[in-house]
Amino acid sequence: MSEAEKAEKTYEETSFEEVRDEIIKLLDAKKYIRARQNLLSLNEADAAEVIEETEDELGIEMAIILFRMLPKDEAAEVFSRLSSDDQQGIITRITDKEVGSIIAEMDFDDMIDVLEELPANIVDKILERATREERKLINTFLNYPEDSAGSLMTPDYITLKQEWDVGEALAHIKKVGMDSETVYTCYVKDRGRRLLGIVSLRSLVTRDAEVLLADLMVEDAVFVNVFDDREVVSEAFKKYGFLAMPVVDNEKRLVGIITVDDILDVIEEETTEDIERMGGVIDRSDKEYFDSGIFHQVKSRLPWLILLMVSAMFTGLVIAHFETTLAKVTSLAIYLPLLMGTGGNSGSQASTLVIRGLAVGEIELKDAPRVLFREFRIGLVVAGALSAINLCKIHFLDQESFKVAITACGAQLIIIVIAKCLGGLLPLLAKKIGIDPALMAAPFISSLTDTFACFAYFTLASFMFGI
Amino acid sequence: MSEAEKAEKTYEETSFEEVRDEIIKLLDAKKYIRARQNLLSLNEADAAEVIEETEDELGIEMAIILFRMLPKDEAAEVFSRLSSDDQQGIITRITDKEVGSIIAEMDFDDMIDVLEELPANIVDKILERATREERKLINTFLNYPEDSAGSLMTPDYITLKQEWDVGEALAHIKKVGMDSETVYTCYVKDRGRRLLGIVSLRSLVTRDAEVLLADLMVEDAVFVNVFDDREVVSEAFKKYGFLAMPVVDNEKRLVGIITVDDILDVIEEETTEDIERMGGVIDRSDKEYFDSGIFHQVKSRLPWLILLMVSAMFTGLVIAHFETTLAKVTSLAIYLPLLMGTGGNSGSQASTLVIRGLAVGEIELKDAPRVLFREFRIGLVVAGALSAINLCKIHFLDQESFKVAITACGAQLIIIVIAKCLGGLLPLLAKKIGIDPALMAAPFISSLTDTFACFAYFTLASFMFGI
Repeated sequence: MSEAEKAEKTYEETSFEEVRDEIIKLLDAKKYIRARQNLLSLNEADAAEVIEETEDELGIEMAIILFRMLPKDEAAEVFSRLSSDDQQGIITRITDKEVGSIIAEMDFDDMIDVLEELPANIVDKILERATREERKLINTFLNYPEDSAGSLMTPDYITLKQEWDVGEALAHIKKVGMDSETVYTCYVKDRGRRLLGIVSLRSLVTRDAEVLLADLMVEDAVFVNVFDDREVVSEAFKKYGFLAMPVVDNEKRLVGIITVDDILDVIEEETTEDIERMGGVIDRSDKEYFDSGIFHQVKSRLPWLILLMVSAMFTGLVIAHFETTLAKVTSLAIYLPLLMGTGGNSGSQASTLVIRGLAVGEIELKDAPRVLFREFRIGLVVAGALSAINLCKIHFLDQESFKVAITACGAQLIIIVIAKCLGGLLPLLAKKIGIDPALMAAPFISSLTDTFACFAYFTLASFMFGI
Repeated sequence: MSEAEKAEKTYEETSFEEVRDEIIKLLDAKKYIRARQNLLSLNEADAAEVIEETEDELGIEMAIILFRMLPKDEAAEVFSRLSSDDQQGIITRITDKEVGSIIAEMDFDDMIDVLEELPANIVDKILERATREERKLINTFLNYPEDSAGSLMTPDYITLKQEWDVGEALAHIKKVGMDSETVYTCYVKDRGRRLLGIVSLRSLVTRDAEVLLADLMVEDAVFVNVFDDREVVSEAFKKYGFLAMPVVDNEKRLVGIITVDDILDVIEEETTEDIERMGGVIDRSDKEYFDSGIFHQVKSRLPWLILLMVSAMFTGLVIAHFETTLAKVTSLAIYLPLLMGTGGNSGSQASTLVIRGLAVGEIELKDAPRVLFREFRIGLVVAGALSAINLCKIHFLDQESFKVAITACGAQLIIIVIAKCLGGLLPLLAKKIGIDPALMAAPFISSLTDTFACFAYFTLASFMFGI
């Protein structure tokens, strides 16, 4: 490798991909000992990725062979990083004893995630092994609604006592730190288990041993409610930049914490859901593209397509209504795709920006008049430019009559302005009436503006040609 | 408030929004003392939000009045959380001395972010105040490409020495901890400043004072290169779940670290860019919806609209080519929106899923054949269902001839399958040739499938009606 090539070698191109492909090749050739050597050189996140890729390319049985090569203390950590499909695939095929030892080693919140996805009979089998107290705690956590803060949190946080000094706090952390989800943020509660304040490990390690926690803890801490939607939780993380967030119940008692590493996954899943909906795919299963069957995909695509088809039928009705106009001036049909296309695209641009603005909290419902005014003005400028280009093209290039050109371009002007305004307002309206604004994206807006486009176009044409 | 209402009171509805609106109302009524009292009750993130909202509603001058009410030690922190537009607005209107004291108080990485956005003459003025050494460091950081790991990192990390024991390390952290971006991950370097290993504060506070760092540090640490794109960095954070990531230069020397709280912002900005491109808006400025002018918006929307209009003109050409067919059977036009609509929407669904799959790393280029086969099968099922519905509707409800119904539905079947395959493949093709796959979303796919739809429809019609 030349010096210049070396300089270009970045994180993306490090040898992990090579090691991964090597392991899969070795497994395929049944060279298990060498595959294992390669696997053990990887950290847990990479090992999990190799197992997922193995499942993808060589099937679940081979993935299990690979999974079993992991040392016991790593297996649980790797397992918790696998997709829920692969987790299920493994857990239903290994021995009960193996399942038990993996579950026992996992962090509490990861374990809950796994249990939530497993069939009830397997969960029961696992719960049988737990102590009565553990079982009770697990059941409480399993009962929090999916996608709630409760379903994300862990009870393994560090509690400190207000009357302790820094020395006592550090001694306590030394004792319990390894079993906690995080040691970097610790919590102080009152007798009613209500959150009194937060103590960061940074503040502890930079102070003298005699300082009292009461003097350095942060009161009025930000928290989330156990029933808050996980989107609310991730917004709070983004806003405050915390490493961990306390979760309280309705009586304001501290019941758990959520750590930032789990939020990265939540953000990714929420974003995927938003983007899918904007593309007209409605699927709440968090399944990845290749992990779902053909009929699962059909189920998440067909209903919305049918709805949009019905909307397209209305557009057809509009054309049917103007069939005589069209029969007299068939060249009108030539510019129909152009009008529908630019209308749909103009509207989609506006709705995309407003949907995203709502999602990141920049646009609120009360901004509706501002959005409308903005989109109206943008629409005028954009429509003016496109219609001018189009007028020249239709009249001079296509050599159509000036009447046809004026009809098409006049309609285009109207359609684009309407599309921009609709695209700006509909996501806000959706939010107002409790529908996900993401549904008001390109597919829906295009279908809707198609109808408007046909109507405006043919109405104008009837008028221009006196039909 | 009833008990039930209280129980529903969640994070989103806490009093912050009320305090915010109260402050703005007080400012508007020039009741500055009471506005200040309210402001001081807020944490930095909330205070920043109030200032942004004030700028939005009452203008920048009032926002500056509010900003100046902050105590000195909070001002820098609040400032670093403002949007870059508000930062510029403030910095160009306050005194040089005020600017100097804010900049001096800011974290290094936040300061670089601010300097990157400021006009050169202001940056020069600020640099004049810095020591020669600081100036050199700032200039190095300012020279990293925008959107690179280098532009995100901070040099304020803690370096420990391999030969130290835990006690010595903790004593060092106590001394320098308050000036570091994070104390929770510390770094050990060799003499050539290359990264030797990582020591977490958790491992330090849970071990005895005599343990040597050489025995507990993690070697083979994951790192990113200073020129890696920030998307690569955020992928690495998602995968490994770290709180901080070391950044090395091309000689593998440790030059800085990136902390997870900054990555949350990066993920949001990258997602916004992806979503905007999928909606046909191409804008690399990171400006929010209301922060950009009308002509900025036009500039980011018009080029793509023109391109898509040209594509729609091709569709028009196809119709023009078949004008005689259309003139003979004008009722064919009625089903054109339906065919174009379902084609576009079917294709958009596929492309949305593949674009997202590429973005999260689930789908790779080598998966192209799998994607094609999948979309082909999904397309067949979806097309079958929609065409069947449509056939009944056109023949029985619209009472069109069986010939027209068969033409429309046969064309629909072909179009949907083609659209699904195109939607699945085009994002992969774009990635292959180095274009952002996000551009292959709904607007582009719809425009493309429109052309196919018209062609397939009228070809079939010509054949069916023997024209």
